[in-house]
Order: sequence, then C-alpha cells, then structure tokens
Amino acid sequence: MLKIDLNCDLGESFGNYTLGMDDQIIPLISSANVACGFHASDPVVMANAIRMAKAGGTAVGAHPGFPDLMGFGRRNMVTTKEETRSYILYQLGALDGFCKAEGVRMQHVKPHGALYNMAAVDYELASAIVGAIKEYNSDLIVLALFGGQLEKASRDAGLRTASEFFADRAYNPDGTLASRSLPGSTITDEDLAISRCIRMIREKKVTAINGEDIDVDCNSICVHGDNVKALEFVEKIRSGLAAEGISISPLSEIV
Amino acid sequence: MLKIDLNCDLGESFGNYTLGMDDQIIPLISSANVACGFHASDPVVMANAIRMAKAGGTAVGAHPGFPDLMGFGRRNMVTTKEETRSYILYQLGALDGFCKAEGVRMQHVKPHGALYNMAAVDYELASAIVGAIKEYNSDLIVLALFGGQLEKASRDAGLRTASEFFADRAYNPDGTLASRSLPGSTITDEDLAISRCIRMIREKKVTAINGEDIDVDCNSICVHGDNVKALEFVEKIRSGLAAEGISISPLSEIV
Amino acid sequence: MLKIDLNCDLGESFGNYTLGMDDQIIPLISSANVACGFHASDPVVMANAIRMAKAGGTAVGAHPGFPDLMGFGRRNMVTTKEETRSYILYQLGALDGFCKAEGVRMQHVKPHGALYNMAAVDYELASAIVGAIKEYNSDLIVLALFGGQLEKASRDAGLRTASEFFADRAYNPDGTLASRSLPGSTITDEDLAISRCIRMIREKKVTAINGEDIDVDCNSICVHGDNVKALEFVEKIRSGLAAEGISISPLSEIV
Amino acid sequence: MLKIDLNCDLGESFGNYTLGMDDQIIPLISSANVACGFHASDPVVMANAIRMAKAGGTAVGAHPGFPDLMGFGRRNMVTTKEETRSYILYQLGALDGFCKAEGVRMQHVKPHGALYNMAAVDYELASAIVGAIKEYNSDLIVLALFGGQLEKASRDAGLRTASEFFADRAYNPDGTLASRSLPGSTITDEDLAISRCIRMIREKKVTAINGEDIDVDCNSICVHGDNVKALEFVEKIRSGLAAEGISISPLSEIV
Repeated sequence: MLKIDLNCDLGESFGNYTLGMDDQIIPLISSANVACGFHASDPVVMANAIRMAKAGGTAVGAHPGFPDLMGFGRRNMVTTKEETRSYILYQLGALDGFCKAEGVRMQHVKPHGALYNMAAVDYELASAIVGAIKEYNSDLIVLALFGGQLEKASRDAGLRTASEFFADRAYNPDGTLASRSLPGSTITDEDLAISRCIRMIREKKVTAINGEDIDVDCNSICVHGDNVKALEFVEKIRSGLAAEGISISPLSEIV
Repeated sequence: MLKIDLNCDLGESFGNYTLGMDDQIIPLISSANVACGFHASDPVVMANAIRMAKAGGTAVGAHPGFPDLMGFGRRNMVTTKEETRSYILYQLGALDGFCKAEGVRMQHVKPHGALYNMAAVDYELASAIVGAIKEYNSDLIVLALFGGQLEKASRDAGLRTASEFFADRAYNPDGTLASRSLPGSTITDEDLAISRCIRMIREKKVTAINGEDIDVDCNSICVHGDNVKALEFVEKIRSGLAAEGISISPLSEIV
Repeated sequence: MLKIDLNCDLGESFGNYTLGMDDQIIPLISSANVACGFHASDPVVMANAIRMAKAGGTAVGAHPGFPDLMGFGRRNMVTTKEETRSYILYQLGALDGFCKAEGVRMQHVKPHGALYNMAAVDYELASAIVGAIKEYNSDLIVLALFGGQLEKASRDAGLRTASEFFADRAYNPDGTLASRSLPGSTITDEDLAISRCIRMIREKKVTAINGEDIDVDCNSICVHGDNVKALEFVEKIRSGLAAEGISISPLSEIV
Repeated sequence: MLKIDLNCDLGESFGNYTLGMDDQIIPLISSANVACGFHASDPVVMANAIRMAKAGGTAVGAHPGFPDLMGFGRRNMVTTKEETRSYILYQLGALDGFCKAEGVRMQHVKPHGALYNMAAVDYELASAIVGAIKEYNSDLIVLALFGGQLEKASRDAGLRTASEFFADRAYNPDGTLASRSLPGSTITDEDLAISRCIRMIREKKVTAINGEDIDVDCNSICVHGDNVKALEFVEKIRSGLAAEGISISPLSEIV
C-alpha cells in the first residue's frame, strides 16, 4: 500500500499570542513539527502541543530555529558551527523534556524558516545541524527539502532521512522551489494541488514551472494549519489520498 | 567514611558576558549546578559546562530559574502551576540535550535564585517543581535548602532528596538562614566557616546566630566560583575536609 | 458640553504575532495606549501604531509594562525603585522615538497589566513610576485606576492626572474593581454597560456590586479592540454618548 | 588648535553581567557610545552611563545594534528597511529617555558591531539607518567608518558626519581596515599606535599595511575601556596628544 506522511509546523503560539489551530490540525496530520522556543513557542505551548499530539496519535518532531523571536526565525543569521550545534542540542532537549513527561518518543527533526532555507543550500551549515541531531539521538529522522543540502548531509551522516513536498508551490526544473516572486509560483487551485501530490506519490513526478516533468521522491507533504481554509484543504487532501488508497502514515513507518 | 558533596552554581555566562571561573571551579567540586538559559547561560555556555564537568568527573545537575535574564532570576515572579511545571521540564530537557550529546547522566536539580527562595517557603510552588522533576526523571536528586518546603515536597513525592549547608551564612535558631541584613549573618572567618562545615558533617550541629546549638543534617556544602578568593576558599575547605578524613563525593553517592 | 475620553490598549502585536485590530479601533477612540516592547509590541508595530494614531487624529500615550514578554506583563514581579524608574524612562523614550519621527506629541502614560495593578495598591511603586514620568516630561498626563495609589501619587507629584472607568466591570462599595471571581463582576449587558458610563459621566455615580450607589469621577472609559464584538461595542458606546450630547475628547482636553 | 575626539563603546553591561570599566573610561574620553538594550545594556545600565557621562562632561551618543543579545550584535542579520528604521528609532528614543531625565543632549549615533560593519559596505542599509537618525533628530552627528558607505549615506543626507580612526588596526591601501586574519593587522606597539594617531591628525596620512602612505581624514579615535591595559593606553594617548598640543574635544566641536 502506498504511504505518505502529512507534516505541519505547529506549537507556534507564544505567551498571550495564539498562532495556528493546533488542536484542530493535529488530529489530521501524521507528523507534527513543534517549535522549541527560539523563533516561536514557549514551554506552556510546547507542553500542550505534545499532549495534543499524544492524544491524537500524531508523531512528534522538533522544529528548531534561529534565536530570533522578533523575526519568527525567518531572518538569515550567521552563526558559527559551535553555535549551530549548541542551538540544535538545546532545542531538541527542551522539546524532549515534554516528550519524556508524556511518554512520547520524538520521531524527527525539521529545521524552521531561515535555518531550513539556509541549510538547504549550505552543506556546512546542514552538516552542523545533522551532527547535533546525530549526537543527540541517532534514531531521529531528518525531514528536509527535497534535493537540498540538508537532505544530502543527513544521508551522508547515515541518519534516516525524509524529504517533503510542497503541494502549493511550483518547482523549478532542477527540483528547487520556484521563487515566490515568479508568476505561477503558488498553486491556488486546490484540486490541482492534490492531484500533484498524488502524482508525486504514485509516479514520483511533478510538472515544473516550465512545463517539464521532473523527478521528485518525497516522503511527506507539508500542510498548514493557520486558518480555516488551510484546515479545509487538509481535509480535502486526506479524502483525495483515501480515494486513491494512499495511507497517511508517520515518517517512522515510511523511511 | 564520612562523605560530603561540594556543589557550585556555574554555567552562568551568557553570550559575550563571562561570569564565574567555570574551568577552575569544576575540578574542585563534586556537583555542578548548571544554569539552563532562563535566568543565565546560553546553549554554547551549557555545552562547554557539560564538557568540562565530564572531563573533571564532576556530577551534573540542572539549575533552572525564572525566565528573567535581566534580573538574573533573582526577582520574585508569580507563575501558575502549569507555567512552573513547563518551565522546569523545558530547562531540564534543554540541559539534558548536552548531557546526552556528551554521554553524561544528569544527577540532580537545584532551583536558582528567587525560584529557590520562594520554593523554600511555598509548599505549593515546591510541589509544582518537584512534580515536573519526577515526571521528567524520577531518579533525579532534588537539592534544596535544609528544612525548607522544597525539601519537604521532594521527600513527600518520594524523590531522592539532598539538602545543602551554607558555610558562610549564619543560621537562625529554627534552622533558616539569618537575614543578610543582620550583623553577624555572614561568616567571613574562613577557618570558622570550615570548622562549622566539619562540625555539621561530624555532629550534625551548628551554632545558630543566637549562640544556641541546632540540628542540621545536610548532604552538600554550597561553594562559590566567582573569583580568586572564592576558589582559594574551596581549596582550603577541600584540605580541611581531607585532613579530617571526610571524602568529597557527588550527591548520588550520598543520598 | 460634557466630555469623556475613550482609551484602548493597542500596539500589542509582536513580530509574526498579531493581537488586536489596531487599524479599526484607532479611529474610534480618543486616546491610544501603545505598548512599548517590554510586555508586548516591537519597533515595527510601534511605528505603525503611531502612524495610524496620527492619521486618525487619536492622541498617543505610552503603555509601559514589566519586562515579561512571555507573561504579557501580567505577572507580578518585584523590581527595585531604580529598576522601575529605568524601565519607565526606557519605554517612554522608545515610544517617543516614533512620535518624534511622525511629529506627534505624546499625551499620556498608562502602566500595563501587573504594573498597573500593583501600582494601584502600592504607593511606593506608584511614586517610582510617577517620578520617572515627571523626569521625562512633566506635561504628560498619568492615566490611572480611579481611587488607586497611582492616581494619588500622580496628584501628589503635581502631574496632570486622569482616571478611567471600566464599562464592563462591577465595582466594590469602596470604589475598587470587584474581583473577576465574584458572580456579577463582569457586566455583559451592553446597554447596561453604556448606561452606567453615561450615569458616571452625568452624575459621577455608579451602582456598586452590593446595590449601593457610590461616587466615581473618571475622565476616560477603557474599551477593548481585540475582536469584532469589542469593536461593535465601541461603536455602540459612541452612539450612546452622541445621543446624550457627550463629546468624545482626548485626555488633554479634559484634565 | 588641532582637535580630535576620543570615542569609546560603553554601557554594555547587562543585568548581573558587568562588561567594561565605564566609570573609569568615561572621564578619559570625549564621546561615549552607549548601547541601547538590543545587543547589550539594560535600562539601569543606560541610566548609570548617562549619569556618569553627565558628571564627566562627556558627550553622549547612541550605539544601536541588531536585536541579538546572545550574539552581542556581532552576527550579521538580514533586516528589511522598515525593520532597520524602526530599530534605530526605538533605540535612539530609549537612550534619549535617560538623556532627557538627566538634562543631557544626545550628540551622535554610531551603529554597533555587525550593523556597523554591514552599513560600511551596504549603501542601502546605511541609508535606512541614516534616514531614521534624520527623522529622529537632524542635528545628530553620524559617527562612521572612514570611507565607508555609512559615511557616504550620512553626507548624502546632509547630516553632520564624523569618521573614526582605529589606533590599533592596520589599513589597506584603499583605506579599509586590514582583515584581522592578516599578519600585522593589529598594531600592538603602543607608541607606534599613538604616533600613527598624531600623524593622522597632523598630516591626514597613515602608512597602509603594504607600506604605502594613504590619506585618512578622521575626526575621532576609537578607544577601548574593557580592561586595565586598555585604560592605560587611553591615558597614554591622552598624554601623547597633549604633548603635541592637540586638544581632545567632543565631535560637536569638530564637525
């Protein structure tokens, strides 16, 4: 039976600030990327996210980012290898505090925002991240951009590695994501988005922004849980996958 | 053979700010209380502290505090039970990230500053702290003020519990610390301080500020590592203990 | 003509987190209390709030709080007099940076959350706040809880002083706010809330929670701008005041 | 009479962390660059710095940086033009809060660390900084790296502009600072350092790292106040300048 993971960034609220509809998205996905307090989240939010993931049977992953709450971890920062290693260890450990308290096993790690984007194109940074993950727990799965340097560094380090597909983004012929500034870079037709996902799963192909068919082999689809429309899309993609006989399964059952 | 633990707060540097002489104090003590990034420390500092503790054969404990870097965790804050639990879990986990990376086992937890002082007199707060520690790892030793509510809450929860003696502080007849505003509250005569420690270990007695002898039964002596004079005192107390045939041992070998 | 000020806390968003409907509430009120980056807000949010207030002809005030972003400034903290003074000066200055850039004159200061509540019952804390405001700019109006210690400290210091009325809260016979835990402490009937405001303005009376009529003499009504319902209430109170021939005017035209 | 300004970064302590010997360096310099709470400093530290500058008759400037306390503002960050503007306005205003309380007039602005270095080579970033300074107070002097983009942007904006000379750094033939990784990039011979300063003031020349004489025309010499040796050097350079009949004067008397 064909399998695919659905992952979503969550646990991104902070103090009095609510972001995302965690309680509603968690039961719909198979892998939850939980922010760890650097770019978003706080200990109470993390505790709740892990509790909800446990209740929903959703696998838990860490979503570490740069220490930039004001910029939501979306601003490029230059950190040393030692800083990168330490920031990852700190955040993995912090999230694991709640996993241990709830008796949940951490499944994966997906870097956030600027750290994710920079690691996709910088093998040295990617290696520092991967090295810290391996030091922490070599059973963790690294969830990375398909075809990027983080995926490569993770495989090179011998870690279990997964890559994700963006249902709502156009791809360049080389497999990278088309810049959001390009016309057609965002796929707004939901049915098209879902059919692209299904084709990616079945045929490991997607049509790039120039019309050319390219190879993509991803283990997870990244979805959003910020608003009602995003949730409806997740319901829709779940139905679409079910109709195709594709099972939604956490990464640990796939890679 | 009589045994006593020497504990010291460290890992308190932050970014470009250096506090304490961690590299020099760590080899002289048996238990290191490492700050966890809320009131002091940062991930790089924590990584280094754990590395040095491992190299020095010094046992590691978490030193969690309030989220108040500007106040160094020394200002009373009112937190809910849920916040307290989450702050403890987060900080224990974060420090454990570095312990896991270095293959070091976390031995104990000693709250910092205002959290320590408030927990010594507030059983409910103490219970929230203890509960989180127990949820995280029920093998952890709680290091508390002798005779305070944290010690009581820890014993009530069935956790391994240790209490600490302050070599340089006078005690009230009821076993609490004499207020620093009182004359004679600080013991500046180093030989007297050491002889008080030895008597506490041998006889479980100390002379209170009013001249009365009181019972004290502590497993650890709290020392400082901030400056050269503090380090010299630790050398001196080590010699004093050795001369008396008292072994310096980590908490895990005592309680 | 009778006059009343309508004030609202805003500029409370932070980075990627949006809180409140600033653009919609600002044109409806006469005095905006803008958060200053300690308990909420960031420089971009503050810049926008001042720009919107200028465009809407709304008077601007600083809304300083404790340095506790995670707790939204709602947790009691113990600060020294020197810390309190410095925190106020810093926040007033920071907000004034944007006022100066936009050519707007800061009108008033209203402390936020725990700082507001603590200052209402602690004359010493209130005096530290008031002293800093006076040092910064002795033309500023202090907006305080009616009958509290901040109001008193402000008058004692010779500053222009205003007090605010809570349309949706019940009062104790002594003029303090009834605890939210009491039945009847929140007034949910909007028409009743508005008629209480009008009576307070016209007669300087309000019916306390025990049914007794008490004296209240406030210059401003505190409204909220968090959600559509809150905005609708503000529209409603504006109409109610207009129907009574009561003018909505900024504090500077009242005290 | 020839004049030169001596400037120094200070007010960089934070909470319990002390950095620099502010009380000793302030009386020896003519312009103090005071950190504003983003990369270093806190309100209490800033209050003290302004008080000491006033007492010492030292001119005050703002030393704004990136919001990166953990990295001491030394890490490159990518910020939007709107963020840069807002960060500058916030920090200038915050420092001015203490200046207003003490009746001191802010003289200048010198960006810190990564913001300084990035602005020296990025005209767009430099313009965003300069624009905010001008919006805040067009009388402020911008203190910049000699020959860099910040100096250029400041002059282009019509602001009073000063540049600084580094006594202890070698220069490239094009007037930029020689990389610290090059041999000879740091000038450790104090007498040589002082004679280079004097020649720069008298002849507007310095010998570059390749032996070639180049033109430099700076209004200020940047000195350090971190340790006893740094302070001794400042005493020495003061004597050296006095012996040459060169007056130490704040920027406002020079540009």
